[in-house]
Amino acid sequence: MPKILAVNAGSSSLKFQLLQMPEETVISKGIVERIGFTEPVFTLEVRGEKHKLNEPVTDHQDAVRILLEQLVEKGAVEQLADIDGVGHRVVHGGERYSDSVAIGDEEVRSFEELSELAPLHNPANVTGIQAFRKTLPDVPEVAVFDTAFHQTMPESSYLYSLPYSYYKEYGIRKYGFHGTSHKFVAQRAAELMNRPLNTLRIISCHLGNGASIAAIDRGKSIDTSMGFTPLAGVTMGTRSGNLDPALIPFIMEKTGKTAEEVLDVLNKESGMLGVSGFSSDLRDIETEAAKGNERAILALDVFASRIHKYIGSYAARMNGVDAILFTAGIGENSPIIRQRVLNGLQFMGVYADEELNNIRGKETFISHPHSPVKIIVIPTNEEVMIARDVIRVAGI
Amino acid sequence: MPKILAVNAGSSSLKFQLLQMPEETVISKGIVERIGFTEPVFTLEVRGEKHKLNEPVTDHQDAVRILLEQLVEKGAVEQLADIDGVGHRVVHGGERYSDSVAIGDEEVRSFEELSELAPLHNPANVTGIQAFRKTLPDVPEVAVFDTAFHQTMPESSYLYSLPYSYYKEYGIRKYGFHGTSHKFVAQRAAELMNRPLNTLRIISCHLGNGASIAAIDRGKSIDTSMGFTPLAGVTMGTRSGNLDPALIPFIMEKTGKTAEEVLDVLNKESGMLGVSGFSSDLRDIETEAAKGNERAILALDVFASRIHKYIGSYAARMNGVDAILFTAGIGENSPIIRQRVLNGLQFMGVYADEELNNIRGKETFISHPHSPVKIIVIPTNEEVMIARDVIRVAGI
Repeated sequence: MPKILAVNAGSSSLKFQLLQMPEETVISKGIVERIGFTEPVFTLEVRGEKHKLNEPVTDHQDAVRILLEQLVEKGAVEQLADIDGVGHRVVHGGERYSDSVAIGDEEVRSFEELSELAPLHNPANVTGIQAFRKTLPDVPEVAVFDTAFHQTMPESSYLYSLPYSYYKEYGIRKYGFHGTSHKFVAQRAAELMNRPLNTLRIISCHLGNGASIAAIDRGKSIDTSMGFTPLAGVTMGTRSGNLDPALIPFIMEKTGKTAEEVLDVLNKESGMLGVSGFSSDLRDIETEAAKGNERAILALDVFASRIHKYIGSYAARMNGVDAILFTAGIGENSPIIRQRVLNGLQFMGVYADEELNNIRGKETFISHPHSPVKIIVIPTNEEVMIARDVIRVAGI
Repeated sequence: MPKILAVNAGSSSLKFQLLQMPEETVISKGIVERIGFTEPVFTLEVRGEKHKLNEPVTDHQDAVRILLEQLVEKGAVEQLADIDGVGHRVVHGGERYSDSVAIGDEEVRSFEELSELAPLHNPANVTGIQAFRKTLPDVPEVAVFDTAFHQTMPESSYLYSLPYSYYKEYGIRKYGFHGTSHKFVAQRAAELMNRPLNTLRIISCHLGNGASIAAIDRGKSIDTSMGFTPLAGVTMGTRSGNLDPALIPFIMEKTGKTAEEVLDVLNKESGMLGVSGFSSDLRDIETEAAKGNERAILALDVFASRIHKYIGSYAARMNGVDAILFTAGIGENSPIIRQRVLNGLQFMGVYADEELNNIRGKETFISHPHSPVKIIVIPTNEEVMIARDVIRVAGI
């Protein structure tokens, strides 16, 4: 009965879940926040009981030490030797990793090299990995990549229409992200539909603060809306998604900003925040829209129509679709967005059921019973995917 | 029986057609090239007979003078007074012009102001307009915009997910181009289908060196693939189309280029030229692909798949489609591209007929007789659209 720790290390945080496998139940979960800052916060839940700590946490090494101590002290495990494996989320696996991988010295070096493609994420992920390797040197560790699932995309999907040398020399191509989530919900949809995954054409909508759509053809990702970075694709909370590339020099000229500063605007001040003018949080926008706020209504229109169009284009990519999936914060919890995204897809056999759609955060079919295309809300679970991959890759 | 001159002035060229209306027959057509350069070339065709001149042409004013002299000398008209109207292609009409307009002093000033949005095109268009106004002061002149037809797009289509102030302050939004062509083929399709345009959902594919797709819902453009500039949308001859916007700062850093220089690469060294590595001309690429050249095959795949996906997304935008139209150089002349674009759209009722598709440059239905969605090749004719608008707007 292996116990697996699933870890997601950010630049100043460490999120984790301890899972009992193969039952996939959560023994403990928590997060260390503000690592290296004043007043770090460590929140821990063990078998439903909540704990909070305000100990100083100088760095990730320190965070890992405290986390492991607390897991024993609060009774999540009897001793550290009870942890059978650690799985790490690594954002960017480049073209090198099309599957999860057991971590050795060489892999750590390789993840560091890939930092060039994900300068905000991979270094933090590596810091987390190194802290665990030092503290638990004998426990197998596995890296699970956000990009790996999309490595099955054909060249016509991942290649940009740029000078080909940019691909060869600089690795410029579409990588796609949220792969662990898209893979999880696709597998779960096949179970729920009682059909083998390799017979299904699935369009998966991961709609959170970041949002991406994936075309999953018989189990394989063949296209996805995010690109070289997670900025591309649909409108998001604060991210612009796709733009006319000529706008960047134009905005630079108009505002006097550098290219990096414009990129910052595109990442942090755009998306639904930019359109609505007041919030990146869909709940705020839905509240204001209900009161008749025009810019809030516009933000909903823009967000939903972009996703709606992606669904059409991915159905075209697969010559039809068998199931449309919604997951992540917005996908699981917003009947309004789902309704707007789905309305007007009847021509391709998509019929949502208004009543069934009126749910939040629950695994449910929301398609009309007679709808040829099934529509399913599936809460995502990246931690479970990581734990599964640790078991599979490390052979536990 | 009015005679209308349709004019398209570029920075160093002046293209024109003299049309007999309402028959819409060409009396004369030609082009003055290399204006202001050494060895300018003036090619003129009158009622099928070809002429070539190598006179010096110092500027657009000079080009207009020579052109008009030659129209009389070669017998296209008896005297200049026989020209009843002049229509000018103007690339950018901004949000100010949603239809063609009679040109007065105020309009010329306004077109000049719009040069900010189309710095390569509007100044040349204005130069052409001013030359004709001087030489034919009593003849009505009308401006016909590439952008006007798309002014019916809803805000959710034309607004980018950027800070809203960028739209209000800098006019940053999707404008779309090729509007005159999209409108022409849509109207022609309604005639050919024997159905009122305002009952049809049309997806129009203008595929030339520049390429754009438009969703035309009951006669109105509601979305189009080009954006703030003609760089956006699908892969083109040398243009990249849509990209992850984060790539621009990345390419700047990798290559040491400025933003403007990167934009130049995106406009002139990308698209099918960038992917194939040897040509922006689809005919060259098809020839090489037939010999098994992998990069040529890849360029075809990339180009066709981008268009294919747009068709899916625009069908979603209209909850279905009644007709798909192909026009312009590639759209009219490449059975290979049409076949690749259309294959895999059977799920939405699109069935091409392989034999019917095997035509070039001819107005033809290429859908299978039983295909619910009609597919039509329609040679575009922007000059006729311009002449029609001169008659309508100037009340000739």
